[in-house]
Parts: sequence; structure tokens; C-alpha cells
Amino acid sequence: MTGDVKTFEIVFEGRGAASGKMRNDIQVNWPAQGESFELATDEGPFHGGDGTAPPPLALFTAGLIGCLMTQIRAFSKRLKIPVDGLAVSAQLRWKGEQIGREPYVSAPLGFGLDVEMQSSASREDQIRLLEAAKKGCFIEQTLAVGNVVTHRLKTEDGWIDV
Amino acid sequence: MTGDVKTFEIVFEGRGAASGKMRNDIQVNWPAQGESFELATDEGPFHGGDGTAPPPLALFTAGLIGCLMTQIRAFSKRLKIPVDGLAVSAQLRWKGEQIGREPYVSAPLGFGLDVEMQSSASREDQIRLLEAAKKGCFIEQTLAVGNVVTHRLKTEDGWIDV
Repeated sequence: MTGDVKTFEIVFEGRGAASGKMRNDIQVNWPAQGESFELATDEGPFHGGDGTAPPPLALFTAGLIGCLMTQIRAFSKRLKIPVDGLAVSAQLRWKGEQIGREPYVSAPLGFGLDVEMQSSASREDQIRLLEAAKKGCFIEQTLAVGNVVTHRLKTEDGWIDV
Repeated sequence: MTGDVKTFEIVFEGRGAASGKMRNDIQVNWPAQGESFELATDEGPFHGGDGTAPPPLALFTAGLIGCLMTQIRAFSKRLKIPVDGLAVSAQLRWKGEQIGREPYVSAPLGFGLDVEMQSSASREDQIRLLEAAKKGCFIEQTLAVGNVVTHRLKTEDGWIDV
């Protein structure tokens, strides 16, 4: 296929403030859309929190599922592959490794997504739609590659890279 | 340092169902803890949704921020590095590339986290705490490496890998 190549950029910003024992109140902004969202994370009593909000990994899980589902429905229209109903199940696995009483080190083990489309489209078209959604999903494309996450720490001399 | 090596596994499961135009209702379970969380994503009118819930990338942003903050506070206790107040700001950037009217392909551009600790600890100890939190944060450790995300599609012949 030929056509003009267009690129666009998506920027999300967020700021979290520690509030309860383990609770974080997090405002997320999507400046280009002028949208703002109030979110929060917490931990259950087992982890020293008050269970007032989902843990961070629950938001991550929902974000991953929602991202793929959104792209399936958005690209359904664009590719003219009808989807009348959609459910996606996911399993996300990590491990932690701890030496003695040191802080543990975590690592991902695997992520799996099961997609159920209610669709009159052929299997081939459903596969084509799913493949397009995978490539369009910002979170999946992020997980697929090694990313550099940069950190700065505020000090009395200003921000330093850590 | 010496000590026994312990490993543990964290498994999150989720199931999303398409409801509104672009809304997804997503139940996330943490079976080992017997915890369950009701979450949702939506898109604003610009993207064909009704704006009834944050978009998936807002959950992702809050999950990333909350994950690092949780580990900073958890490891603060373990490392005996006091943290009296904590705020973390983040900027997450992606790009999309589209040829003609084809579905766009997305890619991550960069993730940055700015950490402000209210702490009587030395700068060296604050850095040590932040380094430990980075290694313990499940989401950061996931972003750092290339992950295989597997997909299955339900067909009348059962699940097939896509």
C-alpha cells in the first residue's frame, strides 16, 4: 500500500503524592487533549497499606487489557472488520528474588492475552484485526522492547540523574 | 552480602468486556491475595468514546508512578532510610506512525521519573533507596527488557495462537 507517512506524538504526564501509609494520589494529564484524571494506588494490609485503592499492578493490568481492546475496536472501523462484542482475558506474571533481608529484585515472567471477538468476519480478517491492534497498542509496543527509564532526584543543589 | 536466596511469583489476572462505544469494564484479580478490583477504561469524544473512565495510558502512567512510589516507601523501612514525604512526577512519550489510511503503528519514545523525597537521610542514602526501588519495581523492570506478549484468538475450533 502506498500513502503519505504521518507521525504523531502522545505525551502523558503524571504527578503522585504519598498520602496514606502506602496510598498514592496521582493526577494524570493528557495535555494535548486538555484531559486530566484523578487516580490512586494503595496496598492491602498485608503490604502495610489500607486497601483504599488498587495496587499499581492492577492499574497496569487494566491498562494493558484496555489498550488492546481499544485498538481492536478503533481499527475494526478503519479496516471494516465488524466486531459486535469483545472480551479480553489476561494473565501477567512476575517474579521477585530476595537475598537475605535485602530489598528484592523483580523481573517479568510472561504476559498472555486471550481475545474473544463476536464477529461475522472470517477468521483471517479477525487475525488481521488482532495483528493491527497489537502493533497499534502503545502499551504492547512498549513491552516489546527494552526501554530506558530515566530518573532524577531532587537535591538542594537541584535535580541529579540517578 | 550473603544470605538465603528466596524467590516468589506474582500473578495478576484480568478480564475486560467491551461495554460502551469505547468503554471497557475490567475486573482485575490478584488470586494469591484473594483481592479483586473493578476498573474501567474509556476514550474521550475525540476518539469515539464517552469519557466515562480514564484512557488506558492514564492507568499505565499511574501504575508506573505508583509502583516506584510504593517501592520507595516499602524499602525505606527495610533499608532504614527515612522518607517523611514523597512526590513523583513522570512524563511518558510515545509516537505513532501511519501510512495513508492504514492503522497506525506505535512505539515508545521515552519515560522519565522525577523523585522528590522529604528525608533527613544523606544524598547517598536517598540515591541508594531510589536504586533499590527501581530494581524492585515490577513495572520498571518490565519496561527495561523486551518482553514477549502472547496472544490467542478464540475460534470455533478452539484457541489459536496469533
